[in-house]
This record gives sequence, structure tokens and C-alpha cells, in this order.
Amino acid sequence: MRNAFLRAALGALLLATLLPASPDAQTIADRYRATTDRIIAAALSDSAAYDRVALLTDKFGHRLSGSASLEQALDWIVDEMRRDGLANVRGEPVLVPRWVRGSESAELVEPRRVKLHMLGLGGSVATPPDGITAPVLVVTSFDELTARGDEARGKIVLFDVPFTNYGATVQYRSRGPVEAAKLGAVAVLIRSVASNSMQNPHTGATRYDTAVTRIPAAALGVEDAAMLHRMHARGERVVVTLKMEATTHPDAMSRNVVAELVGREKPEEIVVLGGHIDSWDVGQGAMDDAGGSVAAWEVLRVLKRLGLQPRRTIRVVLWTNEENGLRGATAYRDAHAAEIPRHMLAMESDGGVFAPEGFSVAGTADAVAMVTGLATLLESIGATRIAAGGAGADVGPLTAAGVPGLGLDVDGTRYFWYHHSEADTMDKLDPREVAQCVAAMAVMAYVVAEMPETIPRRAPR
Amino acid sequence: MRNAFLRAALGALLLATLLPASPDAQTIADRYRATTDRIIAAALSDSAAYDRVALLTDKFGHRLSGSASLEQALDWIVDEMRRDGLANVRGEPVLVPRWVRGSESAELVEPRRVKLHMLGLGGSVATPPDGITAPVLVVTSFDELTARGDEARGKIVLFDVPFTNYGATVQYRSRGPVEAAKLGAVAVLIRSVASNSMQNPHTGATRYDTAVTRIPAAALGVEDAAMLHRMHARGERVVVTLKMEATTHPDAMSRNVVAELVGREKPEEIVVLGGHIDSWDVGQGAMDDAGGSVAAWEVLRVLKRLGLQPRRTIRVVLWTNEENGLRGATAYRDAHAAEIPRHMLAMESDGGVFAPEGFSVAGTADAVAMVTGLATLLESIGATRIAAGGAGADVGPLTAAGVPGLGLDVDGTRYFWYHHSEADTMDKLDPREVAQCVAAMAVMAYVVAEMPETIPRRAPR
Repeated sequence: MRNAFLRAALGALLLATLLPASPDAQTIADRYRATTDRIIAAALSDSAAYDRVALLTDKFGHRLSGSASLEQALDWIVDEMRRDGLANVRGEPVLVPRWVRGSESAELVEPRRVKLHMLGLGGSVATPPDGITAPVLVVTSFDELTARGDEARGKIVLFDVPFTNYGATVQYRSRGPVEAAKLGAVAVLIRSVASNSMQNPHTGATRYDTAVTRIPAAALGVEDAAMLHRMHARGERVVVTLKMEATTHPDAMSRNVVAELVGREKPEEIVVLGGHIDSWDVGQGAMDDAGGSVAAWEVLRVLKRLGLQPRRTIRVVLWTNEENGLRGATAYRDAHAAEIPRHMLAMESDGGVFAPEGFSVAGTADAVAMVTGLATLLESIGATRIAAGGAGADVGPLTAAGVPGLGLDVDGTRYFWYHHSEADTMDKLDPREVAQCVAAMAVMAYVVAEMPETIPRRAPR
Repeated sequence: MRNAFLRAALGALLLATLLPASPDAQTIADRYRATTDRIIAAALSDSAAYDRVALLTDKFGHRLSGSASLEQALDWIVDEMRRDGLANVRGEPVLVPRWVRGSESAELVEPRRVKLHMLGLGGSVATPPDGITAPVLVVTSFDELTARGDEARGKIVLFDVPFTNYGATVQYRSRGPVEAAKLGAVAVLIRSVASNSMQNPHTGATRYDTAVTRIPAAALGVEDAAMLHRMHARGERVVVTLKMEATTHPDAMSRNVVAELVGREKPEEIVVLGGHIDSWDVGQGAMDDAGGSVAAWEVLRVLKRLGLQPRRTIRVVLWTNEENGLRGATAYRDAHAAEIPRHMLAMESDGGVFAPEGFSVAGTADAVAMVTGLATLLESIGATRIAAGGAGADVGPLTAAGVPGLGLDVDGTRYFWYHHSEADTMDKLDPREVAQCVAAMAVMAYVVAEMPETIPRRAPR
């Protein structure tokens, strides 16, 4: 709170210094308040967004890159967008990786036989058909692995690392297999990257290094990892059999789905917003990120319903392959390279469509200050907290090219309870909160597409 | 709080009227405060209780009646109790039901194929080997089932009933199969009886009626039940294949494990306390009820360590077969029928060994008043909330016979997140809270075994 205040104050000061001719952002906001109040009321007037997320995720389930369910969902979305009367509805081709989980299991065989709750990590190689049976070495950090390096050879290394924050803890999912393989480990298990657990393991992408042997890797339920750790700490011999049939196939064709509300005066200038339509191959991918995808899509429907056609084009993109490749985001950047200087804003929702709290701004201090002013329009839904930060993975290639970025920030209390697990399902979302997310994005998209001013850009990286 | 106060005031009044020669309970408590403070300090001085629950549940896992793991756990407990130097350690024979889950699955086959998260209900009959494939009728109450009775024939009835409280919601697990079978349903599914969910289905006992066809019954994850309900509400045809191999075998031999601290003056008078050592066949049965069993057992170890030998005998009983028969509780009552008039208190912990808050008293208003006074000894651990109520299933046959009963009340916030599911595991418990439960039970057991006064009894039912 205090930081946000300081940032806002500093931003206002910079605006006053550097942009003396421009009305301040609060004044800009005030111009549109009557309209944005109508937008908010319209977004909150029904549960259309929630119902559409439910229909999509119930109808097609999870949607991993390369799967039939993803492509069927995309077909349906294109049809629905056309039925909504949106403009320039199309799929833009993207080649995506195709990793297929196959059958998989992990069993504790010593000191007693127990079927473990596991999910192979995305991109993992398979085990031999009979599996890998080996003693387990439990460590709680890369440092401990290094210290016990001579014990790792021939073992299954279990990283039982308590969740602190995603950025820190996910390192064990990403780098664990490489670091363990360097020391001669035969497979890797990780405690699921999760802030709460009911024996629901959490998958997610892992990485290999061409110079290091690729060893199979899987996540265990937090509970099972803790049990193996307790057994290990008692000095018991802990032996696990890991079986995974995971396969990587040739790249498959997918699409970014694009739809527009064409601008009335400057149609060539673009406010882009979206979420990623692919998901991991578990649960319904409802929170991550059907919710963000549909919320962005609903922004166009709400504006259209109100008969609002802003000065610039608002473009929705449902990016494909965020989870295990980011190919949709890079394909969009490449296909639209010439247009990037005319992208005035890139907005993303990929933190779950829970109660919105504000936005992270990928941009200059001036940009933060301007967004802080515009966000006063969101007071009625409590989404006014603006901070400098990343805007999201799919808009990353755009913000790196200088486009101001906004990432929707929400109440993240339970996000890592469900993330990448069977528990990422529709019932975790609330119709009112989803509608509030639509409202927050709709207001920002509308105002930035309508105002004569633009959000300051930064130099391309 | 207000009710507790009124009850206490009324109790004190009754004491003053009916038991004029007896010092009031607060005065009794004050006599033992120095000793009970030592007991509390000793219980809180280490994590012995938690460590023992962990060792037990890691070593043997879950412990359903009739299983090898239950009997192996009992062997180990008897050995450990003897190593602890407890008196009269023994197993008292109990014939228990033996229901074996076998392989089981549920799959949504229309409108799309999805493997559902399910657990057969305890005691359920099997399906035919190829399973039962039928359309699903979703209802949210027995009333709705009645209203739609003519739609149930040939269907799988899904009771998608939101959790309100256990007593109300568990009716659908207990009676659902009978009520649906009366209307010609071929199987029953229920939304798991759970106050939160991460696709962890919750099992538990169901009941049949000899006059009604026995149909298979299973619980779905809350998430899956909600999805089927949404599909059904959209007017889609919802078809499920349920396969269950559940079998009921002849009764098997099990044991109540008993151990004592023999009283120094009135060894024939008994304070009994315990938990149930059996569990459902999922998770570790850590919270339900290895924790309560071990906490009771630890009471003896703490008192022994302090060299305390109260006037009366304190007897620990780890009851078998609470979950699907209550045979341990009835066998104990029958084997000890002659002793029941000399049971001065029966205390149970079966609500999870979370932070203790007080006790429920099964007994007269006088008994409630006396326990309220004694509970002032538990102020330092915050376990002073005393209310009239049930004391627990395993002490039920004793309290019905007039023995004053105490049920340990704890912070139950998360109990029905984990109950009867794979998530009832060791990591859900906290060493400090488990030790506080030991302290609360140890103080009550010690004072009631030591004080010359007795808790008033009620007339046998």
C-alpha cells in the first residue's frame, strides 16, 4: 500500500515535470467516468462470462497444446465469436509442441508398498517400460543437493522444497532434473509447487539441457513428498518405482484466435488483450486460463452491447501454447511485427479471474502514473492497486518491444492451491468475481482505445 | 458462549442445591492446579505425540477393519505400550466386518469421456464386471428426488447436495442408496460430504435396508459432481459408467488395545479414555483417528514420566472398527459390563487433534457444571469451552449406560476438508496442537482419577 502510494506520488511528479502539456491522468479519467460506469454496470449485470467459461471448460475439458480438445475448443470459440458479431474473427496459425503424458505411476516399494499421488512434469522423457526402481535421496534445496552430491548417483532425487513463492519454488520443477542428472541421478521427483494440498499433484513444464542426460521427472502430492521425507529422516531406506510413458511428438498445428472491435477513427492503432487458451492436461484449465481468455473476449461483447466503438481498435487474442512453449505469443509478435509500434497497450489476465485488485504495469514510471490515474475509474470494484511489474507471459514479447503492458492482478490467495492440478475446475470461480475482472479489463481497454492521449512507451529491449 | 454461561450458572445453582456438602468444582480444581500445570508443561515439552502419530501412520498407513495393516499396527502398538512400561497391556478380541474396496472407477461417457474422481462408499455392493452404464438424474435433496420420482427408474441418481453440516449432509451418504433404489435407480453417486475440495473424494459408510434392492454407491469429487450438475442443468444427456468390485467377506478377528496406569487407592474405579485405531482405507487415517488414539495413549506416558499415580485407574482403549460397525465400542461395553458402574468417566478424541477448545459433556447439568470448573485448569492452552453434547461414538455405549462422557472439542475448521479422503495425512497435524490435545486430556483424566469427588452420573438409558 505504502509503495503504491509512493509510486503514484513519484509518477505524478514525473508527469508534472515531463509532460506539462498533457492533462493529468485523473483528469483524463474523469472525462470517461460516466461511460465507464455504464461499462461496469453492464459487465456486472449478469453471469454471462462465468457461464461461458463453464460451458467452454465443461464441453472440452483441459486443452494441452497438440490435443484434439484444444483444437475442438478453438473451432467452437471461432464459431461463437462470429455468432457474437465480432469483427475479423480468425485463427492465426502457430506450430506448437506436442507432448503426450501417457500412462504413469509412482509406487513406494520400501519401507512399504503405497501408490503415490503423482503427475509427470510436462516435457519429461519416459522411463523404460518396466519403470525405474531406485533408492530415494531427499533434499530440500539445490545447496543440499550439492553438499550431498556423492550420494545422488543411481538414486531418484526428491526435492522436498516448501512453497515460498512461485518464482523461487518453481526453480526445482524447471531445473531439478538437470541439476540431479549432472550428479548421476536416474530420475527426479519434486514436492508439488503448491501453497496447499489435498493430495492433488501439480504438473508444469520442466527443462532439459542438451549437454546433460535427460532423466524422467514427476511431481508428488505435497503429502507424499512429506511422508518420504519423514521416512528418509528416520534413516529408513526409501525405494520408489517410477513408470512414465511420456512421449514428445512432432510439432502440431494450432492457432491464436483473434477477434476485433474495429476503431472508429484510428483502426490501425491497437489495444490488444487476452489470455491463453491452452492448459495443462489435468482438471479443466478453468482458472488457468480459460477464465482470463473468456474475460478478455467478454470485454468486446460488453462494449458491443453498449454500442461503444472507441477511437482505436480493441483486439482480443486467445494465445495458444503458453504453458509449454509460449509459441502463440512469439508467433503473434512475429506475424504482427509491422503493427507493434501501433500497439498502444497489451493487457493480459493469467492469474485467475478471482476478485480483481488492480494491475501490474510493464512500462515506464510515466506509464505507471497514467494507469494509476485511469484506475480511479475502478474504485467501485476495488481494482485500483497499480504497481510496476510484469504484465504476463503472453504479452511479454510485446512489452519487450516497448508496448505498455497491463497484467490483471487479483486475489491470489488460492491460486497455487489449484494451479496445474486436477483441482483447477470451474467451481473454484465465482460469477461475480469473473464479471468484475471483465469490468476492470473493459474499462482499461475502452479508455486507452478512446482517449486522444497515449500511455507512454518505453524503449524496446 | 452465552449458552455456556447459562449452563454453567444453572449447573452451579444445581450443585449448590443438590450437593451442599461438596466443594464447588472451581475449588476442587484449585487443589490440583500445581500438579496439572506440571502435566501441561510436560505434554508441551516435546513433539513425542506428533512423532508417534507420524511413525504409526507412515509405518502402517490406513487401517480398515479386517485389513492386515490394522492388525500389524495393533501388534506394534501392543509392543510399544509394553516398552513404555504401561500396565495390563492387552488386546481384547472383537469380531469386525471385512469390506474390501477392490478396483473401482467412474467414467463420464456422455456428453464427453472423462475419468471421474470417485471413491466407493463403505459397505457398497459391487457392480456387474462390465459396470453399470446409465443416464444420470441429478437432484439436490430427498425432496427433489421424491418430486422427480418417476424419472429415477433405470438411472444413476446423483445427490449433489452442498455441505451444510456433517449431520445433515451425511444423510445422503447413509440413506441415498436406499431412497434411490426404492424408486428403481440402478446406482447412486453423491457429492462428497466435504466442506472444501481439491478433487479428493470422501468415502464413509452407507447403509442398506433388507427390504430394498442393494444398489452400488460411490462418492464423487465435489468438482465432478458440480460439473455433472451443470451439464444436467443445461439439458444435456449425462451418462456415466460405474465399475466397482467391492466385496464383503466373513467377519474377521480384531482387537481393542487396552493399557492402564493402575490406581493407587481405588484401582477398581476407572477413568477410560481413547480414540479409534481403525480408519477408512484411504490416506493415512492420521486425523481420523490415529491422532486421537495416540494422544490418549500419550496421556499415560506423560503421567508416568512425572511419577503421578492417581487414586483411580486410568485406562486407555484404542477402539477398533469405529468407522464401519462400532463393534469395538460395543464389545468393550459387553466385556466390561460388570465394571461399568465403576467407570467414573469416558473420554474420547475423534474430531482431529487440532488446537483444543474444550470438551462436550455427555451427562447431567451437574456434570457440565463440574467439568466447567475443572476446565479452568486448561486456561493456559485455551481449552476451557465446555458445552453439553455428545462425547463421541466409541464412548456412546458407556454414556448411554450412565457414565459421564467427555468429547475433546478442537478447531474443526479443516476437519471436513480431509475427512475420509486421501488427504487425511500426517502433514495436516501440528506438533504443538497435538501436544495441547494430550495436555487437555491428561489434565481431565488425572483430576477425575485423583479427586475424592466424582462427576455426577445420569440414569442409564
